[in-house]
Amino acid sequence: MTKEITSQLVGSADLNSKYMDKYEIVCDMGEGFGKWKMGPDEEIMPLIDVANVACGFHAGDYNIMKKMVKLAKECNVKVGSHPGLPDMMGFGRRKWAIDPEDIYNMVMYQTGALKAFLDAEGMPLNHIKPHGELYFYVERDIEVMKAVLRAAKVFGVPVVGAKNYNYERIAKEMGVDLIQELYVDTDWSVEGKLVPVAQSRDKNPEIIYESIIEAGTYDKITSFDNKDVPLNFGKNPFMLCLHSDMPTALGNIKAARKALDELNAKKFS
Amino acid sequence: MTKEITSQLVGSADLNSKYMDKYEIVCDMGEGFGKWKMGPDEEIMPLIDVANVACGFHAGDYNIMKKMVKLAKECNVKVGSHPGLPDMMGFGRRKWAIDPEDIYNMVMYQTGALKAFLDAEGMPLNHIKPHGELYFYVERDIEVMKAVLRAAKVFGVPVVGAKNYNYERIAKEMGVDLIQELYVDTDWSVEGKLVPVAQSRDKNPEIIYESIIEAGTYDKITSFDNKDVPLNFGKNPFMLCLHSDMPTALGNIKAARKALDELNAKKFS
Amino acid sequence: MTKEITSQLVGSADLNSKYMDKYEIVCDMGEGFGKWKMGPDEEIMPLIDVANVACGFHAGDYNIMKKMVKLAKECNVKVGSHPGLPDMMGFGRRKWAIDPEDIYNMVMYQTGALKAFLDAEGMPLNHIKPHGELYFYVERDIEVMKAVLRAAKVFGVPVVGAKNYNYERIAKEMGVDLIQELYVDTDWSVEGKLVPVAQSRDKNPEIIYESIIEAGTYDKITSFDNKDVPLNFGKNPFMLCLHSDMPTALGNIKAARKALDELNAKKFS
Amino acid sequence: MTKEITSQLVGSADLNSKYMDKYEIVCDMGEGFGKWKMGPDEEIMPLIDVANVACGFHAGDYNIMKKMVKLAKECNVKVGSHPGLPDMMGFGRRKWAIDPEDIYNMVMYQTGALKAFLDAEGMPLNHIKPHGELYFYVERDIEVMKAVLRAAKVFGVPVVGAKNYNYERIAKEMGVDLIQELYVDTDWSVEGKLVPVAQSRDKNPEIIYESIIEAGTYDKITSFDNKDVPLNFGKNPFMLCLHSDMPTALGNIKAARKALDELNAKKFS
Repeated sequence: MTKEITSQLVGSADLNSKYMDKYEIVCDMGEGFGKWKMGPDEEIMPLIDVANVACGFHAGDYNIMKKMVKLAKECNVKVGSHPGLPDMMGFGRRKWAIDPEDIYNMVMYQTGALKAFLDAEGMPLNHIKPHGELYFYVERDIEVMKAVLRAAKVFGVPVVGAKNYNYERIAKEMGVDLIQELYVDTDWSVEGKLVPVAQSRDKNPEIIYESIIEAGTYDKITSFDNKDVPLNFGKNPFMLCLHSDMPTALGNIKAARKALDELNAKKFS
Repeated sequence: MTKEITSQLVGSADLNSKYMDKYEIVCDMGEGFGKWKMGPDEEIMPLIDVANVACGFHAGDYNIMKKMVKLAKECNVKVGSHPGLPDMMGFGRRKWAIDPEDIYNMVMYQTGALKAFLDAEGMPLNHIKPHGELYFYVERDIEVMKAVLRAAKVFGVPVVGAKNYNYERIAKEMGVDLIQELYVDTDWSVEGKLVPVAQSRDKNPEIIYESIIEAGTYDKITSFDNKDVPLNFGKNPFMLCLHSDMPTALGNIKAARKALDELNAKKFS
Repeated sequence: MTKEITSQLVGSADLNSKYMDKYEIVCDMGEGFGKWKMGPDEEIMPLIDVANVACGFHAGDYNIMKKMVKLAKECNVKVGSHPGLPDMMGFGRRKWAIDPEDIYNMVMYQTGALKAFLDAEGMPLNHIKPHGELYFYVERDIEVMKAVLRAAKVFGVPVVGAKNYNYERIAKEMGVDLIQELYVDTDWSVEGKLVPVAQSRDKNPEIIYESIIEAGTYDKITSFDNKDVPLNFGKNPFMLCLHSDMPTALGNIKAARKALDELNAKKFS
Repeated sequence: MTKEITSQLVGSADLNSKYMDKYEIVCDMGEGFGKWKMGPDEEIMPLIDVANVACGFHAGDYNIMKKMVKLAKECNVKVGSHPGLPDMMGFGRRKWAIDPEDIYNMVMYQTGALKAFLDAEGMPLNHIKPHGELYFYVERDIEVMKAVLRAAKVFGVPVVGAKNYNYERIAKEMGVDLIQELYVDTDWSVEGKLVPVAQSRDKNPEIIYESIIEAGTYDKITSFDNKDVPLNFGKNPFMLCLHSDMPTALGNIKAARKALDELNAKKFS
């Protein structure tokens, strides 16, 4: 496997153990807006360990944010900020050339806003996970990555989902931790790249279950063309990130819950 | 003076001494948006002691907020949040029926966003001062007042500018302090009410200077019809709030600076 | 029935015949935003005669507007504009003090924007129907009513849903027509007032069907406490307005379609 | 001069004569927002012939639009729409990947909105001129160009400022006219390219005056390194576009007015 191959399998996952003592499920939550709903937040929250809460730029608003934080507290779920580009119309998924310093300001603004609701509940901020195009912007542009890392440093939290060989070194120099997550509800290429959702085959709960057991047991996953893709998590746990807006989301999450509970019982208890 | 008379002179100003050891000038700052400017922020900042920084709902944005916080730090100026209703078109000055719980959420969101930039500079949040219609909404509606007090309690800061006899008691019960401020760049009625800016006579720097000296020396101000209005600050200092968007703003602020420097030299040094 | 009683039964419905030659069903359409959905627009459109299309201020956007106009054309549905207050967070349903001249400008802006998409399809603008709080603002404030009527005059279309005895006279003087519509999916008081949706009993398709047959046959409707409420449509048809965001919306609309088809076959063929 | 050289000098300007019978000055107008001002609109309007009016996406709002249209009517100024990307924070100047069909919808929405105010005054829509990044997007991406041309076709107006050799042919095939304009308040390279404003030397009113006389008399302009750049307007007039947000804007416009009045007296009277 060459260096440029993979956005999933970069570097070591040694830092994961610092932030989780078992496998965790994370979902993007609170992505409605005003009267509009997106995923079934109330049904999902009790099934997960960590929530990425939208902060009002690509989705979410101040009312939904408080609701999510309170719901997370009830369900004993950890909360990270899920900042996005200021693009409600495009759900934060359109490519946009924005000054990295503005990106820093956006991430600070959104994360600070979320933190207020966490402070009110006496909950810590768990991490920052960039959303949608901001996630890809971070992967693509080192100045944008640094902007997000600088914001994370102010809040004293790790960044989830920013993957690139150079970034691990830079993050270390800046004193910010990177957490490695895993997706199993979209296809993988043999090079370890995620296949975009639109081109990916449908994943049903059974496949989700099997993939997770495989990942946790053999530290590998099977590509869409039936080859082994090594994961390199070693003895470290990972955050399993599931899409909450797929039609099969709720079934997928239940299957993942079952698989991870079994793995956690064997490996981290 | 009867109870219903005044929004300015309510209650005691004993708490002021807890938050300032001399007279202070406070201005609304950072009320531009994107490429649009409002007041001459760069020229005003070095002349004042405290800045109410707009938080992106009625004015301001994440870029301007950071700029204001950094500028305040350079100028040794304290920073409070200046949350407003989400109404850029109306500059947060239109009457709007909003659920008090939503108001709480808005104040939390905006103040949290600002606090992130303060955290980055190692500066404390000084206070919360509601803007425009939110200021009047607070004065008018006790549930809205409580919403702002609840937010202030989370941040552990006092509220400036919410005046009403009942509120002082409620704030005390809730464990939040209210700070008394003073306006001198608009007319006063003999009952101690501020005359709305639009109906007020022009104030030039000379009048501003004289009014401040009068207020600091005799604890009174002269109404538009030449009567004495007692101020009841006693031995406590006050925040002098000046409009930064009047045509004469810069001259007014310079005159106020001179007057307060003289008073401070006599009374608080 | 006294003058102040009813917002539904005001005045004559003589102008209705000028704009429709049979009973028509009208629904609010296109009330999603970006990636967010509201009602099942695609399923509803083939069942109705007239669509009130949201214009991007309380709901809807430029992409949805074009889609609705094209869908309406395919389904042979007439299109009116459904302007609202600029309040996406509150779905245009919060009370807001806005200058009537600004209201005129908003209605012009939104309706002009919609008309562009109609022009592209060679379709006429059918009417203007204010949404949510703007609807109630029009009923309450004569200057707001005049603002909407002035906009309607520029477009040469009637206004739907602005009801008040004085308004009929004013509209006539201004040369703008008012169309009378009928709601049957919420309760009626005996005075002919609509009971707010939240306090209204659930309406199932059977009740909808019976109410429409009663209205079309006997020109009356039964109040929630079982009294007759005269409707005064006389020989004129009416627009039947159905909520598209009730859980039973699709069933209600199908029942209404059946009832109106039967009535139209008897009375207007 | 090779084909790829110039965005200014493309093709023939034969269509210009169809839309103007003399040299005209055009400015971007109404680029404030709510309480925020941009250029001195009231002072500029009496000095120009044509106004590009912002439509509320990158700048402007429904109140300012009506004001600009009425002011234009008083000053006998023609009005075109100036649609931009939906980016108030970036003043429509940030690069953004947007689906061309969405661009079509945006231009339709904004231009339709403006047309409503023109209809109210009995004024025709003169043209469509894309703003900022949309202008460059049109130059760069043929699908975006076609989207704007399709919108212009619905309104039956020409497009100003979309220049590229291929576009002239495509516009002709689509039945839409392109109008050629001229900038003289920024530097020109010898290849006929505009030098970006930020890198351009300051232009004072005297230079503006001389450049216009040169352009109108000799059909050429002088590049920043003192070479002749042919303009190819032939006997056709042109729209002279001046920036209204430069510090020297008002003086530049007065100088341009004088130069064009002299040229018009000689050539088009």
